[in-house]
Amino acid sequence: MGLSKESGIALGKWPKGDKNLITDVPGVKVGHVTLNDGDIKTGVTAIIPHEGDLFHDKLMAGVAVINGFGKSAGLVQIEELGTLESPIIMTNTLSVGTALTASVKYMLEKNPDIGVETGTVNCVVTECNDGVLNDIRGLHVTEDHVRQALANASDTFEEGAVGSGTGMCCLGVKGGIGSSSRKVKMDGKDYIVGSIVMSNFGADDNLRVGDNFLGPKVDAFLKSEEAKKDKGSIIIIIATDAPLSDRQLRRVAKRAMISLGRVGSYSGNGSGDIAIAFSTGNHLPHYSDKYFLDVKMAHDDLLDELFEASVEAVEEAIISSLYHAETTHGIRGNVKYGMKQFL
Amino acid sequence: MGLSKESGIALGKWPKGDKNLITDVPGVKVGHVTLNDGDIKTGVTAIIPHEGDLFHDKLMAGVAVINGFGKSAGLVQIEELGTLESPIIMTNTLSVGTALTASVKYMLEKNPDIGVETGTVNCVVTECNDGVLNDIRGLHVTEDHVRQALANASDTFEEGAVGSGTGMCCLGVKGGIGSSSRKVKMDGKDYIVGSIVMSNFGADDNLRVGDNFLGPKVDAFLKSEEAKKDKGSIIIIIATDAPLSDRQLRRVAKRAMISLGRVGSYSGNGSGDIAIAFSTGNHLPHYSDKYFLDVKMAHDDLLDELFEASVEAVEEAIISSLYHAETTHGIRGNVKYGMKQFL
Amino acid sequence: MGLSKESGIALGKWPKGDKNLITDVPGVKVGHVTLNDGDIKTGVTAIIPHEGDLFHDKLMAGVAVINGFGKSAGLVQIEELGTLESPIIMTNTLSVGTALTASVKYMLEKNPDIGVETGTVNCVVTECNDGVLNDIRGLHVTEDHVRQALANASDTFEEGAVGSGTGMCCLGVKGGIGSSSRKVKMDGKDYIVGSIVMSNFGADDNLRVGDNFLGPKVDAFLKSEEAKKDKGSIIIIIATDAPLSDRQLRRVAKRAMISLGRVGSYSGNGSGDIAIAFSTGNHLPHYSDKYFLDVKMAHDDLLDELFEASVEAVEEAIISSLYHAETTHGIRGNVKYGMKQFL
Amino acid sequence: MGLSKESGIALGKWPKGDKNLITDVPGVKVGHVTLNDGDIKTGVTAIIPHEGDLFHDKLMAGVAVINGFGKSAGLVQIEELGTLESPIIMTNTLSVGTALTASVKYMLEKNPDIGVETGTVNCVVTECNDGVLNDIRGLHVTEDHVRQALANASDTFEEGAVGSGTGMCCLGVKGGIGSSSRKVKMDGKDYIVGSIVMSNFGADDNLRVGDNFLGPKVDAFLKSEEAKKDKGSIIIIIATDAPLSDRQLRRVAKRAMISLGRVGSYSGNGSGDIAIAFSTGNHLPHYSDKYFLDVKMAHDDLLDELFEASVEAVEEAIISSLYHAETTHGIRGNVKYGMKQFL
Repeated sequence: MGLSKESGIALGKWPKGDKNLITDVPGVKVGHVTLNDGDIKTGVTAIIPHEGDLFHDKLMAGVAVINGFGKSAGLVQIEELGTLESPIIMTNTLSVGTALTASVKYMLEKNPDIGVETGTVNCVVTECNDGVLNDIRGLHVTEDHVRQALANASDTFEEGAVGSGTGMCCLGVKGGIGSSSRKVKMDGKDYIVGSIVMSNFGADDNLRVGDNFLGPKVDAFLKSEEAKKDKGSIIIIIATDAPLSDRQLRRVAKRAMISLGRVGSYSGNGSGDIAIAFSTGNHLPHYSDKYFLDVKMAHDDLLDELFEASVEAVEEAIISSLYHAETTHGIRGNVKYGMKQFL
Repeated sequence: MGLSKESGIALGKWPKGDKNLITDVPGVKVGHVTLNDGDIKTGVTAIIPHEGDLFHDKLMAGVAVINGFGKSAGLVQIEELGTLESPIIMTNTLSVGTALTASVKYMLEKNPDIGVETGTVNCVVTECNDGVLNDIRGLHVTEDHVRQALANASDTFEEGAVGSGTGMCCLGVKGGIGSSSRKVKMDGKDYIVGSIVMSNFGADDNLRVGDNFLGPKVDAFLKSEEAKKDKGSIIIIIATDAPLSDRQLRRVAKRAMISLGRVGSYSGNGSGDIAIAFSTGNHLPHYSDKYFLDVKMAHDDLLDELFEASVEAVEEAIISSLYHAETTHGIRGNVKYGMKQFL
Repeated sequence: MGLSKESGIALGKWPKGDKNLITDVPGVKVGHVTLNDGDIKTGVTAIIPHEGDLFHDKLMAGVAVINGFGKSAGLVQIEELGTLESPIIMTNTLSVGTALTASVKYMLEKNPDIGVETGTVNCVVTECNDGVLNDIRGLHVTEDHVRQALANASDTFEEGAVGSGTGMCCLGVKGGIGSSSRKVKMDGKDYIVGSIVMSNFGADDNLRVGDNFLGPKVDAFLKSEEAKKDKGSIIIIIATDAPLSDRQLRRVAKRAMISLGRVGSYSGNGSGDIAIAFSTGNHLPHYSDKYFLDVKMAHDDLLDELFEASVEAVEEAIISSLYHAETTHGIRGNVKYGMKQFL
Repeated sequence: MGLSKESGIALGKWPKGDKNLITDVPGVKVGHVTLNDGDIKTGVTAIIPHEGDLFHDKLMAGVAVINGFGKSAGLVQIEELGTLESPIIMTNTLSVGTALTASVKYMLEKNPDIGVETGTVNCVVTECNDGVLNDIRGLHVTEDHVRQALANASDTFEEGAVGSGTGMCCLGVKGGIGSSSRKVKMDGKDYIVGSIVMSNFGADDNLRVGDNFLGPKVDAFLKSEEAKKDKGSIIIIIATDAPLSDRQLRRVAKRAMISLGRVGSYSGNGSGDIAIAFSTGNHLPHYSDKYFLDVKMAHDDLLDELFEASVEAVEEAIISSLYHAETTHGIRGNVKYGMKQFL
């Protein structure tokens, strides 16, 4: 979905994927569970990187810790081994443990060899703090919610104040889940780079939608000193079917910081900004009789188009998360307005 | 405790602390919960960095990801902010989620401001895979066990096959929990550097105890090809009361890899080797009216003594974990023998 | 100087320093040597971090390797020790060796103890590739030029196509040297954060001056496919008198990537984007009898203002480098136009 | 050469390569220039990674900055792009600039496209401080010496107090150049991992040759407090013909710290310990019409043998550098004795 023509917002120059969602990358699926009941404004969003056997058929991946004031789990192993072997779960900060346990159980059920014939599994759980709108101390996310989000995973999904984005705030307005994709032609074939974000960062006077610097307008409306602090976080997931190496995926992930700059973030101290990029272009077997594997990687000199398309997809995903998020009233009388009213 | 004179093993040249434990660093406490029942060979070990209010009164800390094939939680924020604000929990790999939730609840109870007046909390949970001896898929560690380990924390504690070390194996023999400490005089005052490890790494033909290269003897006894693989992991926690900066603590942590080399590890692919070093020498307030804080740091040129003492404390902690661990029979008929019989 | 009111360009919201140059940070000095003669379009720019004895009285510093496709020297030691002990030299890529030798000789002359009573010295040399306009293969920079740039260092200096910026190109137009500064009040005192950049990156259709997206206009004028590639590099130096720790300075440096995003970079593959931040707020002695030093650092939660001011100073420094650079004709008939004609 | 049977020293369990030198890796060549005249005790050692066109036919490489108190040039780009495109030069610390200029000129001569049709070149220069024996302030290394070392490169070469190792000291005795190699069978084929080191680190009471802890004997002989400091540095180059990815080569490089631990280093503050690993198993073209390249990489789970063989090769290379180095009298009456007399 992302930003349709009707939104009147056009960002970047690369053509969009068919659905303009991260799920334009074949095999990627996304599912939500939304918890929206009084002071409970939270949820779970699950990204399934490919439809097969994730553990025995791993993908290459890279991480960029843009600002490490965050509590995501599973990043260290991606950095060491360059592989992703589990779904990526997004939820609120204090529910990472619960989501991790649920994800481990999900993987144990699918893989009887884990912990017996082979080692353990690295489950990736990412988070933002939705405590402004959500009763985060209530720990309302259960293992069942995580399981349900995984079961809900599909190649279409909603954006805005849904799933783990239900209670998020961003740049003074309501944040949440956003997604977008871009197409890049390489070696005569169209490749997709898509992004999904959970947006929860930024100061209210800094919002930028392309060359429309909305921040002062938002700030004038809110008149709040507190909103001016760049707190919160953002989780950025980038997927592509172009066969990049783990190092190249780390380079892609790192460039998400460019997108942050374009929408008005300065990566405030308290903003745990994490990007993970993965490619479906190489599948790496868990077990192998052969010491050496054949893989494909890009020529780095020819990565510019993919870099720029990725930066655009992330930028649009962020703005899309704001565009689709409706005004939400949460705990302690806090309210965050949808961005649309300021456009 | 570490290696007493009775052990006949002398490692290094720096004087030992009074207890020869990490708890020689004033304020540091350690508690175990041991689960040892049939196929259940696991547990929890909790390290409490100081006796006060950890969240509002943080310590400086540094991390070295020696080999990132691991699933520890909470490392990313230490790397970004250079602070430790929670206990450090050790447990088995698949129980990290449970331990994380338990640790979050523990911190929420102590700190009503978390998630309301201020942000969230970074809980540190470390792990090794005890699946050779333990029914790790059974997920036998509960939140209560974690809570109990925290409640048990004291300035004396057992070593060997106890706590989270109950089911660990190392260098072909039984691994587990070990600790040691060293004293270094700086500016006319004795400072302590102490270590506690959860040892679970290494191939059986590589064990070295100082200049006693025991590996071949262990290997001849075991005659097992499987034991020759350097799998598993090690978690190394280093504490000091010397006031080091976060960067200096990262340097201390990194040098734990030297200790690994000395006892026979080559940091095998599957060995998630993680070191965390913290100092009780500076306390950093969570809330501050002042933009700038006065802290102490070492002159880097004068760190050599502390570096070497720390390398020794870690080496002795590893060997001590083996020395104190008794022969253990675990799941699927697997058995790991105590190192003592090979000395 | 940066962007004066006469430029009509206003970027950001923080107040500017008196000179609006990095030299607003007391003690910082900058000197140029410009080589502009036919095909020779290159030079040297030297930044002297403080007026005293750099080697025996070091400053804290941090590095962010935004994109490591670059050949700067001296970064590794800054990352390890967190200190700066030499001037920072900027020049063209192939002259790094010459500049390094010249800088080493400069330090040897001032410090007879280097290499005799104490260790060696870490000289920092940064670079961009000016080969589009300059006969870079001619290696026209000499040791004397470096020495001269150091001798020229002063608290006022020119911007644009001068010094090491003489032959640089950026975002399709003429690049070069730019500078700017911001003031932030902390603990009742005004602190300065200033930046100087050597700009040489970016594709011509991406130039953004605040909300004025100039890129398409530049691109339409140039009609060149080649210019659309994001090649080149940028060196970003940030100075502050606020007493930050090395870790905090690394965080400041990292946020320069936000500024790059705002002016239109996506950090192309070939763009060696390096940021170095240093603080004059703590001086660390080379020799010390005392193991422990008293230093000041910021409370990280209160760094947001400085982060944002720094992002603004870097953004303005980049745009200022373009604003001041005049149209330049170089080798092989290449020409780069000054940005002013597109405003 | 390394340690022959005649040396009586046996380290490790993996079979040695035919020459027991890094040049057992096909295509790797090493050349020295030795400057040994009165107070001049220095030189240059050049490693040529393959016999072809290094710039247009790059190798994958990885770097481990074990301790970043060092002034090597060219590491940052290897970390970003994972490639090596030049020879690796070793020399003394203050001559890095000269060696860099010489290496740049060498590459410019061979490649007329550099700086004209394409970008620049990343030349790698590594260093240790030989100031204890050498008049390092005299800057006696010239560009011609570097050129000569490159011209001297061959598949056999001397070890000990030669080339850049002429003036180095290590673990209280004379250091210098050492090399060794190991064979590992993978997928039915013998692969080689070889190492060359320039050793210049360590305290005199710490020397360990396998299980022969020689340090106390050396220390008793020297009776010098100064020698007890772990100063200096080590440069470790590792080559293999096994087709590893850049990430995997970084993992190989990192494990050189294990070898350091085994010979008695604790990576003292002043020891700039740098490891670079490269593979001849994949060749990456500088120019490419295709966006995607076919490469080979190892299955990480099957890297243990190579890791261990590499750790052994580095350990033997270090001890071999000491074994072959003869007693050397240098500047200011300083003398370093050959290790052989202590065996």
